[in-house]
This record gives sequence, structure tokens and C-alpha cells, in this order.
Amino acid sequence: MENMVSLLLSHRSIRKFEDKSLTDEQIKIIVSCAQSASSSSFVQAYSIIGIKDKQKKKKLAEIAGNQPYVADNGHLFVFCADLYRHEVIGRKEGKDVTSSIESTEKFMVGLIDAALASQNAAIAAESMGLGICYIGGIRNNLEEVKKLLKTPDRVIPLFAMAVGYPNQSPDIKPRLPFEHIYHEDEYEQQNEEFEKHLTEYDAIVSAYYEERTSGKRRDRWTEQIAAMLENQTRMYMKEFITKNKMDIR
Amino acid sequence: MENMVSLLLSHRSIRKFEDKSLTDEQIKIIVSCAQSASSSSFVQAYSIIGIKDKQKKKKLAEIAGNQPYVADNGHLFVFCADLYRHEVIGRKEGKDVTSSIESTEKFMVGLIDAALASQNAAIAAESMGLGICYIGGIRNNLEEVKKLLKTPDRVIPLFAMAVGYPNQSPDIKPRLPFEHIYHEDEYEQQNEEFEKHLTEYDAIVSAYYEERTSGKRRDRWTEQIAAMLENQTRMYMKEFITKNKMDIR
Repeated sequence: MENMVSLLLSHRSIRKFEDKSLTDEQIKIIVSCAQSASSSSFVQAYSIIGIKDKQKKKKLAEIAGNQPYVADNGHLFVFCADLYRHEVIGRKEGKDVTSSIESTEKFMVGLIDAALASQNAAIAAESMGLGICYIGGIRNNLEEVKKLLKTPDRVIPLFAMAVGYPNQSPDIKPRLPFEHIYHEDEYEQQNEEFEKHLTEYDAIVSAYYEERTSGKRRDRWTEQIAAMLENQTRMYMKEFITKNKMDIR
Repeated sequence: MENMVSLLLSHRSIRKFEDKSLTDEQIKIIVSCAQSASSSSFVQAYSIIGIKDKQKKKKLAEIAGNQPYVADNGHLFVFCADLYRHEVIGRKEGKDVTSSIESTEKFMVGLIDAALASQNAAIAAESMGLGICYIGGIRNNLEEVKKLLKTPDRVIPLFAMAVGYPNQSPDIKPRLPFEHIYHEDEYEQQNEEFEKHLTEYDAIVSAYYEERTSGKRRDRWTEQIAAMLENQTRMYMKEFITKNKMDIR
């Protein structure tokens, strides 16, 4: 099915949507596709919160750094790692599951389960002619997000996804060279080769920006990423996660 | 594209493959699709290690609990959270990125990036008529996996994915009720409703097993999951992750 590979390869984030809401049926299809993704040992350690309330969307947009497309879209989904359900299950079945659900291992399972589900949702939406944008910006202030969405302990909102009818058609961003992401049989870290890939990629990314901004921007990738990572952000995360009883042991 | 939604909804893990390797071209398409997934702030914090070496596959199968399909498949991909590249970038650009890449926030980014990429790989493979199975079992012993695949610090192998030509046709496993996974505007934890969903689902899962095992198995979902979680596994994970210089602060 060549079409599907083309669909996957043509992904780009959409940050401007028409003023048209998704129908409940569209939402149901997207969530059902999310649920069809694999889940570690069948635990299904995630939840999805759909936001219809305009005030809540506005508040989430503020938290995410005032990006308008967080409020103005066809629908906003918030994907959460969720082990609250498993606490309830433990009580229901009279089993002590506390150590297990507070472990780093199960925290990882929650993150991976939620991310697999979200990517299925993204593909489902795109295959229906919709556009999507992941919004990690809600992690700027998870304490506020938690209050707003009333998530209990052991539920961590990870990111949102804006979905809607595209009102722009941005270009596809070039990715790291295949040989750099993909290793065979072992992780190749011969530093010369490794750094050569990065230099080649820097030139590609720089040309990409230059063309699209009439020469105003020409950042290299490593420059952009190093500057971003030098700036320490969301350093409250560890405390927030453990306060919410995950990633403790 | 109705076909794509059908493809997503019909996913089930394949645990028995024909003895036929993927071509390099198939591998390249699958990895390219993985790379097309979204990445948090364009950081691309993951790597993929493809395993061709039969001895390594055998060893990984042992680590994963002697599941034969880890060794016998068309190709085996190992997905890793990867911030090693970002350490190199920091040095290259003369920026101190250490605190940032050792943060829980960036650990989460690595996990999410890797999982989004892997799910695109899964969909690409399935759309090409191949079957897939995620293998979390490599997390049974990441110290051994690290040695085998020579991953440096700041690279965490998360899971593998066996891909190949299906030699079985298992049924689709029923997922949690839509209303249980999907919340609107806030996380609904009225416990009566919440527990009602679980009870309903238990009956569905129990019937699923009963039918497929001629009555030999009829576990309820909550029973199965509580028993699994009571059993503490992979409790070395926190120590391993921090020893590999991630999720520290």
C-alpha cells in the first residue's frame, strides 16, 4: 500500500486550522485508532482527555506559551500516562501493586503506551485529511494542567495534540541522515563519521531555513539544538512526577 | 483514506514469521517513515539499531525470555532514547547542555520521540503487508543489551520490534471501553462509573480467552493485570537509567 507510506513520509505539523470542529464521530474514529496501538503486556497505561471547553483550551494555550493553534483548532486531545487505573485494579483484586506502579519501569511503560496511541491518532487524523500538531508546551506547567483537567495522582499529562482542517501548507522539514539515525548490529559512534553526518545535516537545515525566510534565518541544526538545550527548561519535572507517585523507585 | 483507518483498527501482534528476510529497501522505507514522525522541538532524540547478526538476535531472544520470534523474523529493530548525540552537539557548539540532557524532562522527550518513531515504523511495515510485534522483554536486562549493542551512556534501548512476513493470523484483542480511555474536558474518576467500565471489560476479555482456548483460560483483565503488577519486575531500571546519565535531575 504505497499510499500509506506516502502519507507517513509527507507529515508536517499544521499550526493553522480552519474554524471547524471535529464531529463526535471523527473523534471516536481517532480515539479508536489510538486504542488499536500496541500496549506493553496489555496494560493500556494511558488516557486521552479531549478538550471542548473553550476556556480550558485558552488556558492550555497560555500555559503552552500562547500558541494560538492550541486554542483554535478542530479538537484538542491531551495524552496522559495513566497508572491510576492500575491502582484501582490492585484494590479491586486485593493485590499490592504499589511498588510496581511507582517504579521507573512502569513510568516508562506509561509514556511509551501513551506515545504509541497518540501516533496512531495522528496517522488516523492525517488519513482523514486533517492536520495535526503535537504540543509539548503543556509541560511548561503541569501543576496548572493537573488542576485544570483534574487528573489524579499517577496520571501525567504528557503532551497535547491539536487536530483540525489545515489552513496552511508548510514544507516538510528535513530529518537527520538515515545513516545517522539507523545503526546496524551495534551503535556506531566512530566520532569522525558521526560528526560528518551532523555537519552535512547542518548544511541541509540551514539551506531549508534560508530558502523559506528569504535569507533571514539560516540556523544550523546543531546550533539551534545546542542553544535550546543550554537553556534549562522544565527542571521542576522530576519533583512533579515523583509528587504524582511515579518514577519513584 | 478509509483503508488507513481499517489498517490501524486491524492491528494485532504477529509472533510467528516466515523464514524470509526484509530487503535493505524495505528496511530503508520503514526507517524513513519512522523518521517522519514528529519530534519534540525538532531534537530527534532517538536512534534505531537494526539487528542482522544471528548470534545477537539469539542473545536478545534469551534476554527477552526465550521468545522465538525475537530471533526468527524478517528483521529486528531496537528503538533507543538517545541524548548521546546531543552531548556531542553541545561540545561541538561550545554550549553546556549537561544539566538539560540529564533532566527528567529530556528523558521523557527521548522516550516519546522513540515511541512516535517506532509506531510510524509499525504502521509502515503493516501497510506493506508485514506483521510486527513490540518486544519490551529486552528491558529484562538492559545491562546485557547495552554490552551487546555497544550503546554509549545517554542511550537507552527501550524495546525491540520484530517485523516480518506473518505466518499466523491471530484475532484482534478487545481494548478498554472507549468511554474509559477517553475523557471529556476533565479526567472523570467517579469511581462507580469507572469500576463499571472495568467490570464490563473483564467480561469481554474473559469471553475472548474462553473462546480462543476452548475454555482453558478465562482470565478477567483486572485479574491478569493485578497479578502481573503484584509481581515486581525490572526494579533495577531506575539505577540503570541514572547510571546511564539520564533522568537524574
